[in-house]
Amino acid sequence: MKPSIPKGTRDFLPEEMIRRNYIFNTIRKVFEKYAYLPIETPAMENLSTLMGKYGEEGDRLLFKILNSGDFMAGVNMDELTLNQLATKICEKGLRYDLTVPFARFVVQHREQLVFPFKRYQMQPVWRADRPQKGRYREFYQCDVDVIGTKSLLQEVELLQITYEIFEAFKIPVVIKMNNRKILSGIAEIIELPEKITDICVAIDKIDKIGKENVFAELREREIPEEAIRKIAPFFDFSGKNEDKIAFLTHFFENSEVGKQGVEELKKVFAYCQAIGVCEPELDITLARGLNYYTGAIFEVKALNVAMGSISGGGRYDDLTGIFGLKEMSGVGISYGAERIYDILNECSLFPNEIGTPVKALFLNFGEVEERYALKALTILRKNNIASEIYPDSTKIGKQMSYANAKQIPYVIIAGEEEMAASQFTLKNMETGEQVKTTIQEIVEILLQ
Amino acid sequence: MKPSIPKGTRDFLPEEMIRRNYIFNTIRKVFEKYAYLPIETPAMENLSTLMGKYGEEGDRLLFKILNSGDFMAGVNMDELTLNQLATKICEKGLRYDLTVPFARFVVQHREQLVFPFKRYQMQPVWRADRPQKGRYREFYQCDVDVIGTKSLLQEVELLQITYEIFEAFKIPVVIKMNNRKILSGIAEIIELPEKITDICVAIDKIDKIGKENVFAELREREIPEEAIRKIAPFFDFSGKNEDKIAFLTHFFENSEVGKQGVEELKKVFAYCQAIGVCEPELDITLARGLNYYTGAIFEVKALNVAMGSISGGGRYDDLTGIFGLKEMSGVGISYGAERIYDILNECSLFPNEIGTPVKALFLNFGEVEERYALKALTILRKNNIASEIYPDSTKIGKQMSYANAKQIPYVIIAGEEEMAASQFTLKNMETGEQVKTTIQEIVEILLQ
Repeated sequence: MKPSIPKGTRDFLPEEMIRRNYIFNTIRKVFEKYAYLPIETPAMENLSTLMGKYGEEGDRLLFKILNSGDFMAGVNMDELTLNQLATKICEKGLRYDLTVPFARFVVQHREQLVFPFKRYQMQPVWRADRPQKGRYREFYQCDVDVIGTKSLLQEVELLQITYEIFEAFKIPVVIKMNNRKILSGIAEIIELPEKITDICVAIDKIDKIGKENVFAELREREIPEEAIRKIAPFFDFSGKNEDKIAFLTHFFENSEVGKQGVEELKKVFAYCQAIGVCEPELDITLARGLNYYTGAIFEVKALNVAMGSISGGGRYDDLTGIFGLKEMSGVGISYGAERIYDILNECSLFPNEIGTPVKALFLNFGEVEERYALKALTILRKNNIASEIYPDSTKIGKQMSYANAKQIPYVIIAGEEEMAASQFTLKNMETGEQVKTTIQEIVEILLQ
Repeated sequence: MKPSIPKGTRDFLPEEMIRRNYIFNTIRKVFEKYAYLPIETPAMENLSTLMGKYGEEGDRLLFKILNSGDFMAGVNMDELTLNQLATKICEKGLRYDLTVPFARFVVQHREQLVFPFKRYQMQPVWRADRPQKGRYREFYQCDVDVIGTKSLLQEVELLQITYEIFEAFKIPVVIKMNNRKILSGIAEIIELPEKITDICVAIDKIDKIGKENVFAELREREIPEEAIRKIAPFFDFSGKNEDKIAFLTHFFENSEVGKQGVEELKKVFAYCQAIGVCEPELDITLARGLNYYTGAIFEVKALNVAMGSISGGGRYDDLTGIFGLKEMSGVGISYGAERIYDILNECSLFPNEIGTPVKALFLNFGEVEERYALKALTILRKNNIASEIYPDSTKIGKQMSYANAKQIPYVIIAGEEEMAASQFTLKNMETGEQVKTTIQEIVEILLQ
């Protein structure tokens, strides 16, 4: 039996774990600096919480958990479709993202929470997607949200957090921003407000398929030719944010919702100027697929790297409504840990100092020397120096290979000679340099 | 629709998360100081990896994941038992512990690992157990193991780690230790080596059911009366470790494996003396249920608290054998984060300083004051001070309640008067004290 793991899932070896933890810790530090606090939700949610929240495609991609005990009791196979059978024998599913569980959490615990509630959450999610390069069936999301305030200051805070995170990673990014009300304004102007979803879905593809194909898709979705002509200027427009704002102000003369969208964008940009935050790039064709956004929408792209967005989010005015709690506006953004990992890896941006935490290895020369080394090892550890002794008095070459493979920077040698002098030989594994000295001196060197 | 989560699972609010993270970080720091490195394995394993590893009961308690797509294709209901049907329509299951996935991991990645391989792993596990007080269907395990060496130094290192962890938590504990070879020795002496598992299972219950009931169970398990008479002295024996060692040395005159067990115990105790580690309490009736232990076994109990063991482990000579890799002896120990949480909570042992990371809240008095506050807030954050501004200029009482509920220690006030003086009022929320000062001074106070 050759052991393996389910396709689309991964084991993480120490070297990868250390790098992944660097990513999570960097993001966590920024979240906490901006006063967001951690929560966690269970891996399993009731399927009734998850189903219908991610569209038909999403329902299909949920991992469902077989009921315990006699799961077939009372099940009449002949009367059920495959989907009905699945929800009959499975009451629970693995979480698909962190947003729906967060909405469920806010409603369930609303009496205990302080609003505006600022939370972050970094946990794995599971999707029964077809695995491919860079797409996994288990992967981590890092979400930050504030719920219970309509203040546009929060949009600006999310921009600050985003800039700060990617600055910490030394990844140059551009943040693109739009407002769903701009898109609603378009639907209003062409007098097809019920077509807003179709319009968003089509426009969302512009980066991938280009303007002409977006028009073709709009036609397919039964948007009349005249309406498409009205929208067209949107796609030909470029310039600075202020030029775009001027264009939009004119364009939305007759749309209330469009005007609101422009107002919100202007306020966010004004905040940016006042605080000294770099203005995001207003991209009036940015749509983002998700249905629940109602205000600002964000997307982050890494410069100089061929990769889709590495982060995205927006404002939702009624996410908790599906669980019975109205009037809870929130705004949030999600960072893709896996994509950040890939960029840091490809661009060699992982800092050197996040290598192994282990600072020193004592070689093992046999029973007597071992006792001598063990006492010194205790001293290192008392000084919070991560260190170890090779557990067997095997060949020295093997012990040195262990230190090399584990990338331990120092090896400490204590044979007869050192013992006689109450000293130790400290070998720098990078330079090969050796010094014979006391354990107190070694502590000082290793603490540097 | 009232939102809820599956029974036996939990949401964690920020206050709990901060406490849980304190536990994980404390344990992690000690693990790393002893040169153990992190790994992670997927939540889902192939059922073939998990089934048959935890006994019949364990198989029943595995959460199984329904196959994606047409899971009923080719399934003939009439020919299958319920269990057969379950494994037919489910190829994957949620991990039940961290030990079996670790064994699978070691075998699968043996070419990439450096042996002896010292790893730790802190991840949730899932069991379809009946939920009750203190027992959950999703809970975290913190495991530390070294695999690829038979050195008894590793047993001592695990004792050191255990003492250090509970010292950090200020939880007084006793570590009980035994050796499976002692129990094998008993089976050898009564000439029933094949009954070793029955003997372990019965003896394992002595704390719960007492000596007489253990004897009754041994009779039920068809251990003859004469054999029970031979074992009896074991249960009447108390005294210091050295007395017990003397007793065992005599008792095992005619058992090779028993002698080996005594030798191993003596070596571990000798190491403890040499390094200055407190000797664990030799408990010759300690058995631990798990089948795979072959040498040392450990159990940790908290003193002054009515609670089962809070940690346990032991040496296994052939854990990876089930996955095809022989001759890989290892030893490990597992710490129960949930039980540690309960003890710290009940005994009020969570340190005060692990409260909220948020240091200060700026009150919001409206547009003009907000801009003034925002610039100061940026300065605090630049100095890595976790801080925030209330996002709306709502009633001051509400803003103060927010600070109180979130346990933020300082509130910063900037109204007309402060603005005119280029100053801020800093209010200590605990003492009520207020000072009017510059933002630079505030930075210094908050950094203390």
